[in-house]
Amino acid sequence: MTFSSICFEQGCWFKDIRIGLLGASGYTGAEIVRLVANHPHFGVTLMTADRKAGQSMDSVFPHLTAQKLPRLISIKDADFSTVDAVFCCLPHGTTQEIIKRLPTSLKIVDLSADFRLRDISEYEEWYGQPHKAVELQKEVVYGLTELLRDDIKKALLVANPGCYPTSVQLPLVPLLKANLIKHDNIVIDAKSGVSGAASLLIIMIFFFHQDTGAKEANLYSEIAEGISSYGVTRHRHVPEIEQGLSDVAQSKVTVSFTPHLMPMIRGMQSTIYVEMAPGVRTQDLYQQLKSILLYEEEFVKVVDEGVVPQAHNVRGSNYCFVNVFPDRIPGRAIIISVIDNLVKGASGQALQNLNIMFGLPETTGLLHQPLFP
Amino acid sequence: MTFSSICFEQGCWFKDIRIGLLGASGYTGAEIVRLVANHPHFGVTLMTADRKAGQSMDSVFPHLTAQKLPRLISIKDADFSTVDAVFCCLPHGTTQEIIKRLPTSLKIVDLSADFRLRDISEYEEWYGQPHKAVELQKEVVYGLTELLRDDIKKALLVANPGCYPTSVQLPLVPLLKANLIKHDNIVIDAKSGVSGAASLLIIMIFFFHQDTGAKEANLYSEIAEGISSYGVTRHRHVPEIEQGLSDVAQSKVTVSFTPHLMPMIRGMQSTIYVEMAPGVRTQDLYQQLKSILLYEEEFVKVVDEGVVPQAHNVRGSNYCFVNVFPDRIPGRAIIISVIDNLVKGASGQALQNLNIMFGLPETTGLLHQPLFP
Amino acid sequence: MTFSSICFEQGCWFKDIRIGLLGASGYTGAEIVRLVANHPHFGVTLMTADRKAGQSMDSVFPHLTAQKLPRLISIKDADFSTVDAVFCCLPHGTTQEIIKRLPTSLKIVDLSADFRLRDISEYEEWYGQPHKAVELQKEVVYGLTELLRDDIKKALLVANPGCYPTSVQLPLVPLLKANLIKHDNIVIDAKSGVSGAASLLIIMIFFFHQDTGAKEANLYSEIAEGISSYGVTRHRHVPEIEQGLSDVAQSKVTVSFTPHLMPMIRGMQSTIYVEMAPGVRTQDLYQQLKSILLYEEEFVKVVDEGVVPQAHNVRGSNYCFVNVFPDRIPGRAIIISVIDNLVKGASGQALQNLNIMFGLPETTGLLHQPLFP
Amino acid sequence: MTFSSICFEQGCWFKDIRIGLLGASGYTGAEIVRLVANHPHFGVTLMTADRKAGQSMDSVFPHLTAQKLPRLISIKDADFSTVDAVFCCLPHGTTQEIIKRLPTSLKIVDLSADFRLRDISEYEEWYGQPHKAVELQKEVVYGLTELLRDDIKKALLVANPGCYPTSVQLPLVPLLKANLIKHDNIVIDAKSGVSGAASLLIIMIFFFHQDTGAKEANLYSEIAEGISSYGVTRHRHVPEIEQGLSDVAQSKVTVSFTPHLMPMIRGMQSTIYVEMAPGVRTQDLYQQLKSILLYEEEFVKVVDEGVVPQAHNVRGSNYCFVNVFPDRIPGRAIIISVIDNLVKGASGQALQNLNIMFGLPETTGLLHQPLFP
Repeated sequence: MTFSSICFEQGCWFKDIRIGLLGASGYTGAEIVRLVANHPHFGVTLMTADRKAGQSMDSVFPHLTAQKLPRLISIKDADFSTVDAVFCCLPHGTTQEIIKRLPTSLKIVDLSADFRLRDISEYEEWYGQPHKAVELQKEVVYGLTELLRDDIKKALLVANPGCYPTSVQLPLVPLLKANLIKHDNIVIDAKSGVSGAASLLIIMIFFFHQDTGAKEANLYSEIAEGISSYGVTRHRHVPEIEQGLSDVAQSKVTVSFTPHLMPMIRGMQSTIYVEMAPGVRTQDLYQQLKSILLYEEEFVKVVDEGVVPQAHNVRGSNYCFVNVFPDRIPGRAIIISVIDNLVKGASGQALQNLNIMFGLPETTGLLHQPLFP
Repeated sequence: MTFSSICFEQGCWFKDIRIGLLGASGYTGAEIVRLVANHPHFGVTLMTADRKAGQSMDSVFPHLTAQKLPRLISIKDADFSTVDAVFCCLPHGTTQEIIKRLPTSLKIVDLSADFRLRDISEYEEWYGQPHKAVELQKEVVYGLTELLRDDIKKALLVANPGCYPTSVQLPLVPLLKANLIKHDNIVIDAKSGVSGAASLLIIMIFFFHQDTGAKEANLYSEIAEGISSYGVTRHRHVPEIEQGLSDVAQSKVTVSFTPHLMPMIRGMQSTIYVEMAPGVRTQDLYQQLKSILLYEEEFVKVVDEGVVPQAHNVRGSNYCFVNVFPDRIPGRAIIISVIDNLVKGASGQALQNLNIMFGLPETTGLLHQPLFP
Repeated sequence: MTFSSICFEQGCWFKDIRIGLLGASGYTGAEIVRLVANHPHFGVTLMTADRKAGQSMDSVFPHLTAQKLPRLISIKDADFSTVDAVFCCLPHGTTQEIIKRLPTSLKIVDLSADFRLRDISEYEEWYGQPHKAVELQKEVVYGLTELLRDDIKKALLVANPGCYPTSVQLPLVPLLKANLIKHDNIVIDAKSGVSGAASLLIIMIFFFHQDTGAKEANLYSEIAEGISSYGVTRHRHVPEIEQGLSDVAQSKVTVSFTPHLMPMIRGMQSTIYVEMAPGVRTQDLYQQLKSILLYEEEFVKVVDEGVVPQAHNVRGSNYCFVNVFPDRIPGRAIIISVIDNLVKGASGQALQNLNIMFGLPETTGLLHQPLFP
Repeated sequence: MTFSSICFEQGCWFKDIRIGLLGASGYTGAEIVRLVANHPHFGVTLMTADRKAGQSMDSVFPHLTAQKLPRLISIKDADFSTVDAVFCCLPHGTTQEIIKRLPTSLKIVDLSADFRLRDISEYEEWYGQPHKAVELQKEVVYGLTELLRDDIKKALLVANPGCYPTSVQLPLVPLLKANLIKHDNIVIDAKSGVSGAASLLIIMIFFFHQDTGAKEANLYSEIAEGISSYGVTRHRHVPEIEQGLSDVAQSKVTVSFTPHLMPMIRGMQSTIYVEMAPGVRTQDLYQQLKSILLYEEEFVKVVDEGVVPQAHNVRGSNYCFVNVFPDRIPGRAIIISVIDNLVKGASGQALQNLNIMFGLPETTGLLHQPLFP
């Protein structure tokens, strides 16, 4: 219905690219479905969810009830010859083994953390298990779209970035590249809504559910009206951030990174405290970001001077809003970057990447506006 | 940017219908802008907001920053010869006088309460002032789309329904029409998010801001972690609901209506307690709703038996989800209906109506999916 | 520290009544500890929590870290000869078997549902298992303090009421007793925070966690920014409410009862729609409630005419605020009653009851004021 | 009622110290009333609120309805000879002129910012007006209880600290004093609930209410589901923090301070990033805090190693929970400090100070436990 009425109205007659969705029963999977609903070329024709196999998608996610969707099946029953591309929303660890068995003709965007770290010893250190697809890792392109779109264009397998790394690297990489900020003493105080990706949830479970006892149904009470620093210095997004910053800094960058869980369903803010290079002023940072971002990028916006980017202003959309502020301490600056963790921080950027991999305008299907209030 | 990239991609080259938006600086105005952004034919070319005249829309609503929009002007400076249709998001009272001076060639959807009540003495009673556009009132079509779309097709001026009346009438009118429920003792316990239309806000201000004193900045503290019945028996949506039900019942219907304000930005649930006609079973209500709604309507869905409709599952979308449940008291039933108060309860239905007035498929620009979580 | 400083200041030198707390690791258990902290006579000297045995209470509930508390032990290791009274916060089902093995000299307040229903066949029907302490059930006193305090004074085992039944019976029982309202067509639309007692949580788990899959850590996202009717007509508090109303009505009363789960940690509102007896006016209901409640009761307050009771105004306290409103439909009235589900709806009322059982003023330790904002 | 029943039970017969409360209609005033309700010696006998003069306190704050309180009067009608002490909860600016006219025999705790800055030129710079009680300023004692209680004991006028400065100085002052951390590059990323003191609200109004237009009743929608950095580098609590740190560092300390407004009614977390002195390890910081705080202080607790302090665990109480964590960057540490902004951050600390000024144990009336969940 959705599909045919759009197509009728727009003059297209079919969705010509068939999408498989692995791990459809999580939030990032559901978000892919939401976004693809209005995409003129992509149509979801295969959906797997092992624990929900046999169920309809709308029995798991009633908000998707208006769409015509294939029934959920077990991944072992999936026929990958019927799809042209795959979004993989599976937990880390299992992802590697599944992806390495997929037909090599498929374009794949992986939303897990399994292929984000180039250095497999670092993967093993942070994820506590050896990497199981070492050869494949070498061919992976890291999918931070705005910074790597030329590589993405040619990729077959894209490792979609984590939400925190996206919000941090989008402003920091251009500033490091231009030598406007120092490499050391970068302090990142990040605040996230609770709908984040797997690694966030796993830590939440660890924190709040140390035994599966009486409190397991009370997570609302634990999160509403509170704030909680978690994974202080140990969050798994740290090596991904440091990999990206080190690449551009051309030396090993170690950051201070403290994520906070907030009473907010979607949304993420990174407040980043940096030391500027000698002689550099806040205004230079602003101009640098504005010059490279504003005129070229649809999805990354440097807002007006003095305006504080707010997570609720990008809710539900693929935008990242950024700004730079002077610090009271001379020589320092404060950068604020906001995204929707489920869109630009996960499923939206995945769709943006697949658009590029198919030679489509990268904004295709992603131009709906933020939902505010 | 948004516009041209959509158009490029879809093969259309311009938005051919020019829209004026009166009262653009409120939530319903901003919501119109959000929805129209992806409409293939409508483009907003005129925006008024008297107190914000001269400002850009994104300085008022930063979430709309990615769109190219005309600057806000004062209504007295508006040139209505440059637009084809108007959405009117002004406060009640002033609306009547403004609309009666608009060119009669314009198609108008009015989101205020000013033209909803056919009986002008009732308007005067509930709004405390005489009606100022009595002649115009006679030509108005009430815009409850699913029930009155044939009339809307021919209308020049549509009075867009209130949010509560929309959520209540969509399930009740078909049941009353089929004589499946009794006219008396209809009890409506409604729960709304805080982003509701003007009448809701006015009551909130009355409740929480009786003097403009120290508490005025604390509304979050008053609403979060609480619930508040308001306007018990006196809410201005009552005569609108009773007008609609009385029309179809062919006798004066008086309802019990108690709205509750909830810690929720968007969303509305009406829990409706009814007595069934003799011999009627809950199952008959369900079948009646299903038969008339399911197979014909895109935006009104009767969900599966036993499934409770939830407001968060229609968030940001034009859908209304409905279901019927047996009551413990024999002969009674419980109807639950949920909408997004700003979309199907305001701006979405307004757009749906204007689509019809222009002969477009009524779903045009409205098929984006609900935002969950 | 807490204890000694209070005692020093107040002139008492020890807490003379030793309290055992069974099932200390749930919210009602923690709430007992919070309240007893400032009680001049009760001191918690024994705490059990099978799954947390060996841990300290503040490792489970860090907000209690300032108190000196005994270590959590397994119930099988508890020496009940060392305590004078017991609060039992265990899940229903197991509670019966544990209580029947306790020394008969102990005063017991049971916060579970296990002894609330006099009719054991009704227990079996609603709880799906035979009652395992049939003899003991006959001696139980139902602990709705304001209505049954003379019986409570002599009781050894008090069944502490459920939260919904407390909020509903406090206003309805006096009105039924005075024959001011009809017995039939009582419609109760109740709204609760999520921290409710066991039966609420079990239903939440059932609703949101039908398999223990990917969504289990996401409860915040399911509840925030939404509202959810649950257990429509089937909620286990129904037989308890009907038992209480039937007793005073002297005939079987069947109510319509629909609970709603809200984004609110604590708090509960029952909006009750009633038909008045012939000739009765709303004002009569108000006067009746005011005459019996206002002048005698510390914890149940009829607020001023026209004022809407709000759950946030009793947060954290043992108060119940009530009011009566005229309905638009002649002959009907609307009653609004609010409590904190964890205090007057659970642990506070339990403490109030134990005070009475020990001959203390029932307000002892319960006079701290509501926490607002 | 509250008062007499407590007194009866505890063996005291009257509240012997009469308290005046200036500016009773704001949140800090209401919080004073809540806390004093259970104080064995203090009784509120005079309450002023100019805009609410003539009203009862429970018409402004219905949660205080159970208490017997004097009627609100205008400050010009107050007879200060009838009270022994005064809490002043008035806005800054006006406070100075009122306090300087009060009888010098009164003990006064001022919760405004008017007397916090010793350097009156700094006051003028940050508050945009000359100080109007320069002589009085010299006699003021700054009321950060744990650090200055010997001075407070002898004070007649105490300037009660701001909420942010309290949460920051409690851990930082002892560490600076022991030379364990460096003076420069202290980065404070603070998160606050919305019920904060005046300066917070003024900035909120500035942010959200730049004209008093259509959005003024929508503050819930602006704050819920979001986070907002505000007053970046310009927040008025900065000079107060720097004054305190500079005093102990014996040189001018300039901090980076970025407050964030969160969807949380009460609560405040300061995440503080520091560089340690050469050779110092995180463990040294922990031990230093633990040695000076744990064994002496009732209200400041260093929680167990590795445990993250959470604002919801001090909700409604006078506690401050603190901890120290190693940073990934060698030589750096992260300090987390949480308080309830309305209690330890305002009214609770004010009561603690007045206790000391009267020679009472400072915990008197403040030992109720945190409200969680």
